Amino acid sequence: MKQIEGGVTSPKGFMAAAAEANIKYKNRTDMAMVYSETPCISAGVYTSNVVKAAPVLWDKAITKSDKPVHAIVANSGIANACTGQQGLDYCKETADAVAKALSVPADSVLVASTGVIGMQLPMDRIIGGVDLLKKALAGGKEAGDQAARAIMTTDTVPKQVAVEITLGGKTVTIGGMSKGSGMIHPNMCTMLGFVTTDACISKELLQEIVSTDVQDTFNMISVDGDTSTNDTLVVLANGLAGNPEVKEKGADYETFFEAFHFVCESLAKKMAADGEGATALFETKVLHAANKMQAKILAKSVICSSLTKAAIYGHDANWGRILCALGYSGVSFDPDKVDLWFESKAGKILIFTKGSAAPYSEEEATKILSEPEVTVIADMKAGDAQATAWGCDLTYDYVKINADYRS
Amino acid sequence: MKQIEGGVTSPKGFMAAAAEANIKYKNRTDMAMVYSETPCISAGVYTSNVVKAAPVLWDKAITKSDKPVHAIVANSGIANACTGQQGLDYCKETADAVAKALSVPADSVLVASTGVIGMQLPMDRIIGGVDLLKKALAGGKEAGDQAARAIMTTDTVPKQVAVEITLGGKTVTIGGMSKGSGMIHPNMCTMLGFVTTDACISKELLQEIVSTDVQDTFNMISVDGDTSTNDTLVVLANGLAGNPEVKEKGADYETFFEAFHFVCESLAKKMAADGEGATALFETKVLHAANKMQAKILAKSVICSSLTKAAIYGHDANWGRILCALGYSGVSFDPDKVDLWFESKAGKILIFTKGSAAPYSEEEATKILSEPEVTVIADMKAGDAQATAWGCDLTYDYVKINADYRS
Repeated sequence: MKQIEGGVTSPKGFMAAAAEANIKYKNRTDMAMVYSETPCISAGVYTSNVVKAAPVLWDKAITKSDKPVHAIVANSGIANACTGQQGLDYCKETADAVAKALSVPADSVLVASTGVIGMQLPMDRIIGGVDLLKKALAGGKEAGDQAARAIMTTDTVPKQVAVEITLGGKTVTIGGMSKGSGMIHPNMCTMLGFVTTDACISKELLQEIVSTDVQDTFNMISVDGDTSTNDTLVVLANGLAGNPEVKEKGADYETFFEAFHFVCESLAKKMAADGEGATALFETKVLHAANKMQAKILAKSVICSSLTKAAIYGHDANWGRILCALGYSGVSFDPDKVDLWFESKAGKILIFTKGSAAPYSEEEATKILSEPEVTVIADMKAGDAQATAWGCDLTYDYVKINADYRS
Repeated sequence: MKQIEGGVTSPKGFMAAAAEANIKYKNRTDMAMVYSETPCISAGVYTSNVVKAAPVLWDKAITKSDKPVHAIVANSGIANACTGQQGLDYCKETADAVAKALSVPADSVLVASTGVIGMQLPMDRIIGGVDLLKKALAGGKEAGDQAARAIMTTDTVPKQVAVEITLGGKTVTIGGMSKGSGMIHPNMCTMLGFVTTDACISKELLQEIVSTDVQDTFNMISVDGDTSTNDTLVVLANGLAGNPEVKEKGADYETFFEAFHFVCESLAKKMAADGEGATALFETKVLHAANKMQAKILAKSVICSSLTKAAIYGHDANWGRILCALGYSGVSFDPDKVDLWFESKAGKILIFTKGSAAPYSEEEATKILSEPEVTVIADMKAGDAQATAWGCDLTYDYVKINADYRS
């Protein structure tokens, strides 16, 4: 597997575009499109929030069916969530407009929205945006970059990744982009994520890979514990790489899965690191838990703890809060057995062992915690399972961004 | 039931004291004592965190036994949590010192600690503090006030309440004090809470009342979702009111329960309103839920949502976040049936109904949300159950307080 520059337009046959549609933002792009002339099989996973945005309902019906998919259209101003029948109608009207512009069936168009909940879409501007997107469609890195920027809301950086693998002697590419900075607590999954590939793979296997992998990637990040109404990850595969179709588990399946996992984990970590107001990526690795489920619950409990997140912001080695967060996670364990470590590029130190503080240097701990990527390792010594979760620190800017997001 | 001025020293026979022991804070009191010469029956509920502080283990053993209790001693500098065997030994040494000073058995002394996790108690200062407390012991309002101040950590105001009721022709008083501002997410329960009463009541009924009532009071508040290692609520009853012993359910039991509930709810709301950095008490009432458990889960999900808390700070009627928080709570419901209201002293408005926004005035909503006590009402229209939860807004100061708490 080789990481390459690029994103959704890296696989063969995928084009992208961005447009300034003035949905909510001014003087920036706020609509994006991904398009493959070759019909794609699709797979998707969506929010578990019982309040589901209209586009989630629309996309779910399509990716569950055997219908080929040609395009994704997204806006980053208004979430089209809690908008009733009107919102569902507007979702269909958006797909109709794209279908007409691209000469494809309306049910081959996936729709995604992110932004303010509760407002109705300004359909004239959406329709105008679709026209602009149609005209701007292009292949290549530049178009992919622009699409990745157009789906951003409070994100500060675009999030893209692409990798190449070889399947049956053919080069297969997987590319992806995502957005998400607040209301990030995937289950499944928080954010918009779009992954494209020119791999030839069966729909059943693709959906299985997506559903499995999000449990260890997007579902293991949290910015603020809030699971969005719009969470969407869709994957399109157009088969243009010409590899022998991957339709059963074996070497090719493993190679593809590993590459797909790399793409999802990279995008997930980029979202956590760019959490609203964040100054640091905060990773928690749980080792030797009794089982995988417990490992995941423990890791997520730490990265979700407001007190721990605030301590990370302050570069404060307040490990008591970490042990406290493990303790209230719901998982039973013996605190006297746990070892806690801090790790970053600046070093690694043991901070808690045998039921009380290890003799570490506060100065060294602060140095380790002052890096932009900080890891807590919790060795539970209870079994063989492990899990990693990613979050970010809690800062003044998180409050600032969210105290008046709508104005 | 009549609310009166005072706290733990209001019931007959209870004395209190505060002392400057320099445990961690300088130039303020940081140790408190409550004492009844008459032996008390006791009841207690403690943190569900698997990481339990040493004093929690000590108190739990005593309140579970039939041993009479005479005193509570607390310090507000160091939590004595994650301190291993040394911490347990120091806890016993503290009780021994109090026992010697007051000429009571060591196992009639409850010990409570709150503050930094992981540090060992400076036992010389603790012992010195016990001597000061012994000398300062006094009855009356002033002593109660001072004890309530001495247990504060990041709290900005002391929290006390007292009520009088009549049982069997006798005046019975219940008084309480509590502390808690951060790491507040009781289960059960977050904080230190001490309730005294001169009621004559059986130990079994008292424990049952305490265990039941915390589910609707202290366990329904959250400041930051972090369940502390030290959560403790203990209740002492010395029987000096001379009422006929309450030993079965009936009119006297109901009267006592109602008064006890008022004391606990008052203290719980005072803690939520004084959450670290908070500018507003944020109440969520869930009406017509399918059952009580669901009502509680829904109400807590809203008051725990970081995004909703930040919006309350910004006086922003961002109701989409409220619906989103209901949606990811884990409770299944029909979003189209839900009505959402904002209410405060400034008025009450319907903001969401029949699946989309109600035609409310943003100006009026902002006015309602600018009060120091703000309520969200979620009418689920699914059944007859209701629940109320209390939290606070999320502010810059929460981050400030917690980014560098230890220094």
